[in-house]
Amino acid sequence: MPCYVKKMLVLAGTLLVINAPAEAQSRKKAKGTPAPVASVKTDQTDSLALRKIFDEALLRGESYDNLRYLTGTIGPRLSGSPQAQQAVDWGKATMEKAGFDRVYLQEVMVPHWVRGSKERGEIIGNKDKGVRVPVCALGGSVSTGGKLKAGVIEVHSLEEVKNLPEAAVKGKFIFYNRPFNDALIEPGAAYGGAVDQRANGAIEAAKRGAVGALVRSMTSARDDNPHTGTMRYAEGVAKVPGAALSTNAADRLSQLLKANPDLQFELEMECITLSDEKSYNVVGEIKGSKFPQEIITVGGHLDSWDLAQGAHDDGTGCVQSIEALRLLKAAGFKPERTVRAVLFMNEENGTRGGNEYARLAAQNQETHLAAIESDGGGFTPRGFTVEGDPATVAKLARFAPLLRPYHAADVTAGHSGTDIEPLQAAVHPKALIGYKCDSQRYFDIHHTAADTFDKVNRRELELGGASMASLIYLLSKYGL
Amino acid sequence: MPCYVKKMLVLAGTLLVINAPAEAQSRKKAKGTPAPVASVKTDQTDSLALRKIFDEALLRGESYDNLRYLTGTIGPRLSGSPQAQQAVDWGKATMEKAGFDRVYLQEVMVPHWVRGSKERGEIIGNKDKGVRVPVCALGGSVSTGGKLKAGVIEVHSLEEVKNLPEAAVKGKFIFYNRPFNDALIEPGAAYGGAVDQRANGAIEAAKRGAVGALVRSMTSARDDNPHTGTMRYAEGVAKVPGAALSTNAADRLSQLLKANPDLQFELEMECITLSDEKSYNVVGEIKGSKFPQEIITVGGHLDSWDLAQGAHDDGTGCVQSIEALRLLKAAGFKPERTVRAVLFMNEENGTRGGNEYARLAAQNQETHLAAIESDGGGFTPRGFTVEGDPATVAKLARFAPLLRPYHAADVTAGHSGTDIEPLQAAVHPKALIGYKCDSQRYFDIHHTAADTFDKVNRRELELGGASMASLIYLLSKYGL
Repeated sequence: MPCYVKKMLVLAGTLLVINAPAEAQSRKKAKGTPAPVASVKTDQTDSLALRKIFDEALLRGESYDNLRYLTGTIGPRLSGSPQAQQAVDWGKATMEKAGFDRVYLQEVMVPHWVRGSKERGEIIGNKDKGVRVPVCALGGSVSTGGKLKAGVIEVHSLEEVKNLPEAAVKGKFIFYNRPFNDALIEPGAAYGGAVDQRANGAIEAAKRGAVGALVRSMTSARDDNPHTGTMRYAEGVAKVPGAALSTNAADRLSQLLKANPDLQFELEMECITLSDEKSYNVVGEIKGSKFPQEIITVGGHLDSWDLAQGAHDDGTGCVQSIEALRLLKAAGFKPERTVRAVLFMNEENGTRGGNEYARLAAQNQETHLAAIESDGGGFTPRGFTVEGDPATVAKLARFAPLLRPYHAADVTAGHSGTDIEPLQAAVHPKALIGYKCDSQRYFDIHHTAADTFDKVNRRELELGGASMASLIYLLSKYGL
Repeated sequence: MPCYVKKMLVLAGTLLVINAPAEAQSRKKAKGTPAPVASVKTDQTDSLALRKIFDEALLRGESYDNLRYLTGTIGPRLSGSPQAQQAVDWGKATMEKAGFDRVYLQEVMVPHWVRGSKERGEIIGNKDKGVRVPVCALGGSVSTGGKLKAGVIEVHSLEEVKNLPEAAVKGKFIFYNRPFNDALIEPGAAYGGAVDQRANGAIEAAKRGAVGALVRSMTSARDDNPHTGTMRYAEGVAKVPGAALSTNAADRLSQLLKANPDLQFELEMECITLSDEKSYNVVGEIKGSKFPQEIITVGGHLDSWDLAQGAHDDGTGCVQSIEALRLLKAAGFKPERTVRAVLFMNEENGTRGGNEYARLAAQNQETHLAAIESDGGGFTPRGFTVEGDPATVAKLARFAPLLRPYHAADVTAGHSGTDIEPLQAAVHPKALIGYKCDSQRYFDIHHTAADTFDKVNRRELELGGASMASLIYLLSKYGL
């Protein structure tokens, strides 16, 4: 491709001064009257400021090297594990090295679930040799207590289980095999449409007397990676084991069941839930120069599932949150409001860190303006999704023209993040904001052994951190 | 991440009927007057049509499996190679199987350059043992005629070479080491800002008496993959060999030169240019139901560099172009204008296929409404870039609201594609259009051994083909 950019306009790398016409008009009208404190009218210095932030990120960004260490040297860091503690130490040291005004830990007790060394699944027909298939325990599952062999009933919804005669279910595995709806453009919506099987499948199975739940992995990819993820038990309902099958394995099991409805599945898992462990959120702060009492939080979660390095889930969110503050400092901006990077502990199987952060915020009577979370991967930026009243969403959307040169201008209402949502009830911030990146690749690797550092692209990662820093710069300057 | 989509609005997968207010107003004003032929006022059936196209692509798309065959079974397919001929046969068979109205070949003579089996680069200091570094011949380079050992002058521009005293250059390698400007948001712009070194470096070096050109690979990645790509010679200027060094190798050489400006570089390459070979463009056509004489072309290039599978460059463009027509058929749409999928031969080192397609179009006095090319990778969609007068760009931009649910709404002026640009002088189409996808990862693998099938994401690829099919649907219905 020798002349790819023959006529491409070189927009970036030069000064971009944006004067949205609507902005200019509204300034004209308001002439003579003082600007309200919560104004979001941007001025010409803002486009220069954002360019400075992106230059710093793209030329001297530290997210990628930080992520290499967190994922490669420390690795998987499930709540309660020694690696989770190493990650806490790393987070604190990294923030201290970045020279934030204040770095501290928030103690929190977290669940301590351990997968164990043996995980085995096998389809056993009447006469054939067994077929070994890739399985993994769902997070929080009880063990099988040795080999657990039983027949299999395939279903496509929780509702279907409720309507099955108890005699048909008793002593068998319920096999939840409803796939992602691939027609949905947002893979997150497809996940949302399938994940009840993983979350509540074991409860509904046990209610009807089943011995366990087998769940199709939460992905539209067809491969051999089983996807773990959290599952629930309910009070008064027997705790039966829950396991994920890779999508290829689920397809195979479904196919074999059609030929032989009496086949059996043998599952062996040694997982166990130990006593809660002491752990920490890691918090780094730059004090606001004008309104130090108003807080803007930016965070990701430090824990990951145990199967992989937790690169996109959510190592990227952690390094981007640290980087967002570092970029402001390195670009020479002293935020007017207090900005906090928070590495939350235990998002994956408890949200204890997010709950504790909110509890302390309420206890300390803090004023929270907004919180941003990056927990959808470190892919190329799209923009931000906002939980807040329509006027607040509209105010944030007026920053979009400044973010457009960086392809981060898609600012719409939507889900923010699991760790920051407890702030809503606790301290009522005006906006809870999710960093939105392109998500087409996310569920291929989500909660699997394939969520590794090499899946992260340096430029995509750094662009994301710079997008978050830019939004913080604007929020800190203009309020909401 | 257990509740990623708790509050996400499920927009896709349901009917999206878009009524942009501006559209409604302009319809009102025009009441009573007949709509002009070239109107781009869309109606409510269009959003349903696009949803149908995307459903077909995401649920039953064939691009990914086609690409697996083209890249995996056939593999690298440089012009003139046996694999290029296999790709022609595959393209024709694939289009015939898709049931297009007419499938045919356009004969074209193409260059036949062969890399040869030996490629070796070594940095040799005064006393130290030599350091082997990854190199590859640039496309079209002459051989070194055995081992070529010489001193090295590092420069950062062609201009710098022109200003060097001839005595300093004579008998040495010129080492072009200007990196990508990483601050640019569009990697294509960074490529455009560096690629003159690769294209014309050997000419300027030879003019000053140098024995060869060593060029830093065209990427912002830091790794060991050398990136090939086309280079030029000029009449009356000696043909000296041109080679690419991986970015790590270039950094190493630069570092060692600082310590020892007298070090030497030994290069050995056996490449050779053979006689031109007969080859073909592959063309598939669906005849327009209302205006069969008006043609819309959609294409990619079938040839690739010889180092890798040519997955993103440009296997993806080929399978997407075939798929665009197949999607229209499968979704039940008979285009009003004639639609042609073209697999161009020889984009990489000659554009002979693109030139021949344009020549035949003029010779046959064809009317071309628009042409679309996908040659920027098969990554997640962004939109389209248009070469055309401002009114045409504006007309195309009015399709954007329909493309917004699929994240393909970024319709702006910009480069289209190397293969379709010759149409401009030949038959003056109203618009030449480039399919624009996210490009942050593209130059990591461009023209290297790493441009392989596994770098392509199924959903991203199919979304791209559906975006192209959607634009064709609209162009075919509304004209320009």
